[in-house]
Amino acid sequence: MKTLIRINFATTLAIMLFMLAASPAWSDSDPLPSWNEGPAKRAIIEFVQATTDKSSAKFVPLEERIAAFDQDGTLWASHPMYAQVIYCLDRVPDVVKAKPALAKIEPFKTVLSGDRQKIAKLSKSDLFKILAATLSGMSVEQFTSEARKWLETAKHPRWGRLYTELTYLPMLDVMKYLRANGFKTYIVTGGGQDFVRAYAEKTYGIPPEQVVGAAGGTRFGYDKNGRPILTKEPKLLLNDNDAGKPEAIHLMIGRRPVAAFGNSTGDRQMLEYAKAGDGERLGMLLLHDDAKREYAYGPALGLPDTKVGTFPQSLYDEAKKQGWIVISMKNDWRRVWAFEP
Amino acid sequence: MKTLIRINFATTLAIMLFMLAASPAWSDSDPLPSWNEGPAKRAIIEFVQATTDKSSAKFVPLEERIAAFDQDGTLWASHPMYAQVIYCLDRVPDVVKAKPALAKIEPFKTVLSGDRQKIAKLSKSDLFKILAATLSGMSVEQFTSEARKWLETAKHPRWGRLYTELTYLPMLDVMKYLRANGFKTYIVTGGGQDFVRAYAEKTYGIPPEQVVGAAGGTRFGYDKNGRPILTKEPKLLLNDNDAGKPEAIHLMIGRRPVAAFGNSTGDRQMLEYAKAGDGERLGMLLLHDDAKREYAYGPALGLPDTKVGTFPQSLYDEAKKQGWIVISMKNDWRRVWAFEP
Repeated sequence: MKTLIRINFATTLAIMLFMLAASPAWSDSDPLPSWNEGPAKRAIIEFVQATTDKSSAKFVPLEERIAAFDQDGTLWASHPMYAQVIYCLDRVPDVVKAKPALAKIEPFKTVLSGDRQKIAKLSKSDLFKILAATLSGMSVEQFTSEARKWLETAKHPRWGRLYTELTYLPMLDVMKYLRANGFKTYIVTGGGQDFVRAYAEKTYGIPPEQVVGAAGGTRFGYDKNGRPILTKEPKLLLNDNDAGKPEAIHLMIGRRPVAAFGNSTGDRQMLEYAKAGDGERLGMLLLHDDAKREYAYGPALGLPDTKVGTFPQSLYDEAKKQGWIVISMKNDWRRVWAFEP
Repeated sequence: MKTLIRINFATTLAIMLFMLAASPAWSDSDPLPSWNEGPAKRAIIEFVQATTDKSSAKFVPLEERIAAFDQDGTLWASHPMYAQVIYCLDRVPDVVKAKPALAKIEPFKTVLSGDRQKIAKLSKSDLFKILAATLSGMSVEQFTSEARKWLETAKHPRWGRLYTELTYLPMLDVMKYLRANGFKTYIVTGGGQDFVRAYAEKTYGIPPEQVVGAAGGTRFGYDKNGRPILTKEPKLLLNDNDAGKPEAIHLMIGRRPVAAFGNSTGDRQMLEYAKAGDGERLGMLLLHDDAKREYAYGPALGLPDTKVGTFPQSLYDEAKKQGWIVISMKNDWRRVWAFEP
């Protein structure tokens, strides 16, 4: 039985690969169809061609082909508020139901009031209290199932679409193109590792073990039936932003990425670290300059800053100096969304 | 150029797979040639056959095929002292050279004396001081290159062979067999993550990103030329033993392993966690009962305990109760080493 199945699998794979090898269509087709021709698209294609060409001095062995992507604002829309923060705010009523005393304590009282203006003004430390209270106390499986339930219904206020639909088509192109050329694609996010893992496999084709993010601790124990469980703890193990990104990359991956993609100061050290390795490297920063199809914000454009991914002039200057490519959403992307032509 | 190369690669792969599919020799050959026939070998083969057979109720989807292996005493010899501890002791003279004041301070004074009996009696907290001093202060690249240099020369006192030669052939069989069937093999070790990563790819075919271990922190910064570096810090982030194993598995992998292999109480919670998942699971413990070819130790055999992997009667009892398979090195392994027939 086993033997038969193994033969069938290998045969199928062989036939598929043979078709692939025989078909010129695949090789000649545009690997980045959602991108406009221009320096950003050209840089990606030249990078992939050089690093996968065995006769090139820039060749990178298969096992070293690691690409790191920031998530919020790089792979999906993070404006006007991080999806995970909205998730945590939405969970507050359930948390208060379990611990009614919280209803009279700030910042939970403000969240329960539903006053959007007041909620938007909550301090960082208040947000932290909300995150700690809503992201801990349950088993890791319970957390994943709750997060998935939310992701299947919660909608972005502007488009009225699921957050997982608000992923950038051109970045999906890049990830597919890299993977087709032997790269392992990782998400390296300041967002919660478990939250992103709940949808990354289905949404991006990135498995949980390739998601590096802000991580809380877990505690091993046994449930009332004696079954081992891991319970999420309100304790931050990894703060995966700024210098925390290269540090987490070393901890979780143990290799220096050859390509890194970001959109804000939180990604600066990750790009520096990736670019500082030997050989060919690719560093890219997405500039949100498309008010029509998405958003335009940030001092580098002479516009007000935002809480969700700061792109100051200094980051723009460093990009130019270090040879990072700045992607203009407006000019470099032919399409932004899968749901729009 | 690129197109040509892609076609060549795909064609070669296709031909190889075709040959594989057409060759009955491979499918019929013994996947575990270093194992004697018996319940342990049978359990592994039945597990792999059931979990990869699409028509079986025990089928496990490709992406869920995660196998976790303890390292010291499970994949290579750890008796009479962990290789990494010897590495740290060997590094003490270099550390003292850089900081001469340490020469007069314990435990460094004892290590420098070379008195083996005294060194063997160092307390856990003394060993911790030595580990912290010898495993930090350098860049992660420097550390890897130092560790590799040591591994290329240091020899085990009994066999006069490199530590990387003292890997158990039957466990290499199991890892290859699992990988050939779509499993991702991980090392989950109480030893140092960076130390094991320095040789795991070459020795076991396990890439750095699939090594989970005790991990110290790193600090991102810049060297004197302004180049970004990560410096190893004397700060323990993950204690990857006991309950720390399933906790680290969740952090680093984010999936529950379907198979887990260990050899001591430090692996107990990992095996419990792996076995508690739904569907078919495999838990195995290696019992060191072969004084002739390797070592025999531990209370479960009525022998004295050892510092390197405790296997008490209680672990043996739990194995029987939970359906973990105890591997007898003496009876289940036809060969132990690659260098012995």
